[in-house]
Amino acid sequence: MKTVTGGVCAAKGFKAAGIHCGIRKNHSKKDLALIFSEVPASAAAVYTTNLVKGAPLTVTKANIADGKAQAMICNSGNANTCNADGIEKAQAMCAMTAQALGIKAEDVIVASTGVIGQTLDITPIETGLAQLVSELSDEGSSNAAQAIMTTDTQPKELAVEFQLDGKTCHIGGIAKGSGMIHPNMATMLVFITTDAAISPEMLSLALKGDIQNTFNMVSVDGDTSTNDMVSILANGLAGNEEITAPGQDFSVFMKALNTLTVYLCRCIAGDGEGATKLLECSVSGAADEAAAKTIAKSIICSSLVKAAMFGADANWGRVLCAIGYSGVDVDVNKVDVSFTSPAGSVEVCKDGAGIPFSEELAKQVLLEKEIGINVSLGDGEGQAVAWGCDLTYEYVKINGDYRT
Amino acid sequence: MKTVTGGVCAAKGFKAAGIHCGIRKNHSKKDLALIFSEVPASAAAVYTTNLVKGAPLTVTKANIADGKAQAMICNSGNANTCNADGIEKAQAMCAMTAQALGIKAEDVIVASTGVIGQTLDITPIETGLAQLVSELSDEGSSNAAQAIMTTDTQPKELAVEFQLDGKTCHIGGIAKGSGMIHPNMATMLVFITTDAAISPEMLSLALKGDIQNTFNMVSVDGDTSTNDMVSILANGLAGNEEITAPGQDFSVFMKALNTLTVYLCRCIAGDGEGATKLLECSVSGAADEAAAKTIAKSIICSSLVKAAMFGADANWGRVLCAIGYSGVDVDVNKVDVSFTSPAGSVEVCKDGAGIPFSEELAKQVLLEKEIGINVSLGDGEGQAVAWGCDLTYEYVKINGDYRT
Repeated sequence: MKTVTGGVCAAKGFKAAGIHCGIRKNHSKKDLALIFSEVPASAAAVYTTNLVKGAPLTVTKANIADGKAQAMICNSGNANTCNADGIEKAQAMCAMTAQALGIKAEDVIVASTGVIGQTLDITPIETGLAQLVSELSDEGSSNAAQAIMTTDTQPKELAVEFQLDGKTCHIGGIAKGSGMIHPNMATMLVFITTDAAISPEMLSLALKGDIQNTFNMVSVDGDTSTNDMVSILANGLAGNEEITAPGQDFSVFMKALNTLTVYLCRCIAGDGEGATKLLECSVSGAADEAAAKTIAKSIICSSLVKAAMFGADANWGRVLCAIGYSGVDVDVNKVDVSFTSPAGSVEVCKDGAGIPFSEELAKQVLLEKEIGINVSLGDGEGQAVAWGCDLTYEYVKINGDYRT
Repeated sequence: MKTVTGGVCAAKGFKAAGIHCGIRKNHSKKDLALIFSEVPASAAAVYTTNLVKGAPLTVTKANIADGKAQAMICNSGNANTCNADGIEKAQAMCAMTAQALGIKAEDVIVASTGVIGQTLDITPIETGLAQLVSELSDEGSSNAAQAIMTTDTQPKELAVEFQLDGKTCHIGGIAKGSGMIHPNMATMLVFITTDAAISPEMLSLALKGDIQNTFNMVSVDGDTSTNDMVSILANGLAGNEEITAPGQDFSVFMKALNTLTVYLCRCIAGDGEGATKLLECSVSGAADEAAAKTIAKSIICSSLVKAAMFGADANWGRVLCAIGYSGVDVDVNKVDVSFTSPAGSVEVCKDGAGIPFSEELAKQVLLEKEIGINVSLGDGEGQAVAWGCDLTYEYVKINGDYRT
């Protein structure tokens, strides 16, 4: 198993493109992405848990109810959510994409990200589709990755190569993270492609299992978007025997998927709005995995912890505080805390109380770009990792700016 | 029922004082407060739900287990929490306070706020107590209010006068809000005094009932401190017949208490760390009160809503988003949202979708210091109010500063 280039085009039979069609005012910003499989593919997706759901998610859910799809279309600049005709517009996007590709509208996954509560003008999409389809290529992944960005500062993509019964398979993905288009809310979108042969049921099982430990463990600001979606297409062109049940092959596939998704999670968290640091919180010794997850997320979501990390302040009291209000029943007197980074490691709390440590070393550790917050509970074998970012002036600036 | 001056000294038989004793380095900052009742009083308190609890809370809980107390001592500058000898130090504070006042150590309520995880040096308290006791007076409330401040920008106090069976009663309080002493976490402390006669059981019932709609509906940053406490003393010197059961008198007392606590909640929220605006979120039409509370708190806790209010941005999509992920089952298509302030009122969302509104008016409304976020759900009769503040550069600065 190794990482390779190509993003969503690393898998056989997938092409991608990304262009500026005119939804976004700024001509230098791409705003329309397309991913296309030469052959029909198994499809699966997971959606935001927010009761306010973007219209594109509703349409996608209906379209892949049969476990099949062949294309993914996504615009940035308008989330097509909380408006009167969202469903209609999302269906129209599928219909025109299907027509341009010569496939069925029901085989299109559709997503949108950007401002909510405003009518989506699909004329630019209609006009741009011919160019978008003409630009589909094996090397289009990075253009597609750019076209789904909002306030992301860099595109996010990766591909992984792995073996299934002697066949070389690939799985690749692009993601957009917690950035905002001019006035509105952060949205996480991830599009994954693979040439491994796997049934829709097993693909869905794989995705639903994986996100519990990956995308669901990422937090930038605690706000769950209306438009979050992770979707995956598997077209089987690698020629492996189709995975239809759990077993060795399924485990290998899960491993490859997880390698991809953990990388994208780290990209998303580290590129959170205004972030200067990626935070990785590792909790071990919890009574069970659920307890470890709850505590890891409580720490990564604490505004006070996040602000302390921005200030490179080894303020472990805030970590203990976040453990204490997480809702998990822990024995505070057994909690150990340390901070790690490429600059070293510093233990700051042992058995629930402060221990002497070098403030100088602590500052060196916390001035790095990737910080580990490590918590040991001494209660059992449960462990979990959560990813987040620091809370910065820039976050306030991005989200406090006037819309006008 | 009317508001009066005097704070915690408005009630008969209560004296207060606040001095600088030396726990805080800055000599211009008071750091030790004392409130004393001439006679033993009914006592009640509520404490943080954080599993990590400050040592003073544990000691206070034991001391008022009999429903009686006569004095309240509180230092700022060190929270006496997450250290090896916290309980011992908190008990020592009670003992030396009791000795100076000629009462029993078990009749002292003790609280601390400030940095956690560091040993509390009680020498300055021991040295300062004689002066503190000598300064006890009917006019000491504002000094006491100052002595419990950390990063609060102003002292918080109020008193209310009311009638119980022909006797004039008073209830007054001081509070410190969500400010931080140099390195550590926000803590809310509230000390209330009344000369009404009320049994310890009914006093506890009143306090526990009231905070569900007041202090528990305040959020500055979602972090529950280890040292939060609201405590109350009732010395009976107003001469009313003791309240020992629910009824008309108890209702009047509850009303007076609520007038005081709502005022203090607004003070605490509006003076949240770095805040420039007080946010008051009113939810109506919920299926029940619990649903209304959950939604109001979800909105008031949203970093995106808070940042938008800082930017005077009528970004109602974020309000809808926070409703959607609150966990309450609502019909989004019936949600109305409006913003109000002294500058006017602007409706921005009707039946879950945006409606045309004057951006100019919206900006005028949101540039004020006190903003109402009003949500109507159309599901029933449940309603609730929550208080919070905007998220600002200053919040990040206060909480991201190096400790050293």
